[in-house]
Amino acid sequence: MKIQLALDRLTIEQAVAVTRPVSPYIDWIEVGTSLIKEFGMDSVRALRNAYPDHVIVADMKTFDNAVYEFEMCFSAGADIATVMGAAPLVTIEACMNTAAKAGKKVMIDLLHTSEEQLEALQMYSDAIFCLHVSKDQQEMQGSTQGTEGFYVPPSLSGEGRKLAFAGGITVDMAQALTRIYPHVMIIGSAITKAKDPAAAAKTFYQLKKE
Amino acid sequence: MKIQLALDRLTIEQAVAVTRPVSPYIDWIEVGTSLIKEFGMDSVRALRNAYPDHVIVADMKTFDNAVYEFEMCFSAGADIATVMGAAPLVTIEACMNTAAKAGKKVMIDLLHTSEEQLEALQMYSDAIFCLHVSKDQQEMQGSTQGTEGFYVPPSLSGEGRKLAFAGGITVDMAQALTRIYPHVMIIGSAITKAKDPAAAAKTFYQLKKE
Repeated sequence: MKIQLALDRLTIEQAVAVTRPVSPYIDWIEVGTSLIKEFGMDSVRALRNAYPDHVIVADMKTFDNAVYEFEMCFSAGADIATVMGAAPLVTIEACMNTAAKAGKKVMIDLLHTSEEQLEALQMYSDAIFCLHVSKDQQEMQGSTQGTEGFYVPPSLSGEGRKLAFAGGITVDMAQALTRIYPHVMIIGSAITKAKDPAAAAKTFYQLKKE
Repeated sequence: MKIQLALDRLTIEQAVAVTRPVSPYIDWIEVGTSLIKEFGMDSVRALRNAYPDHVIVADMKTFDNAVYEFEMCFSAGADIATVMGAAPLVTIEACMNTAAKAGKKVMIDLLHTSEEQLEALQMYSDAIFCLHVSKDQQEMQGSTQGTEGFYVPPSLSGEGRKLAFAGGITVDMAQALTRIYPHVMIIGSAITKAKDPAAAAKTFYQLKKE
């Protein structure tokens, strides 16, 4: 299980700084969509250079222009890039091919993806599928990932499927999630906005060992 | 009818330069998603500063984090921002509200938006609805807007609805489109990659008067 630190609504300098004390306890560093749209690929380059030994995830949320966008963030140093599951299949296919050529990985963000589309996506066995409760769903509807059952669509429940979970994940939720033991647990403000981010990250880190 | 020049796959300097000779013939300048993801809000600020009298459209393709992303691009000088029609309704609602507060406008990009979702979106009478054939659909599937009929979903065909058309629009397609006389015609490479961009833009400009 990997812990992915999501960096959002920060300047590049803040993002680099908040990551420093928590870096021993996390595996992957996500350059959030808000950083990418505010600062462009400078944000990816900065995190890449500051943390050369971590996996860098560029949360591109690609919906079109797949080859251009994926090559752009891979050149900037990303190891993994995200595409929206709700995008046209031709775009997702192009993301998969572009990543494969570059020796990189794709995370498919399933936010607001239909069941029908999900059926079509399950053939991408190399992709990481991210079950995502969005910021707006959290902040405006009070939705979060649960602390009880986590819904995994039947089309994604097969053996060997790489799943990621994102959306306001707290320590309690993470504890429940370890029962599923997903490939990736994406943590944002539970670390970045903690009084003691290093201590918070360490708590998540220790969950991996239980 | 407005002509929106779409700027994509360019550096900021190229985008500013290619717009110069065509600026008398266009109404709106779109800072494309590829510029935003590559250069961040610097791209919006540069076009805003270079063309203070044009309407600036930031093609944010927002899918989450609506308030943050929309405030970000409006602060950078955008007059209109885009949200994906396929996004959760809570996000689209937040985009509408953020734009209204700022005295700005929303364009809803209908790429890969389901009929069911479209039904729910039709209440946003202030929004501009963009019927969009994507770059990937054009380049990998050979799809374009037609030169014959243009499909307008029944839920958007009412009186006073503001429609935009995008996707590889050539002069021939534009000529056919003038029969519908949409609110916005979005033109990219037919101007930016023309041998003589000013002449190409002028041809589109003259269609408005016919």
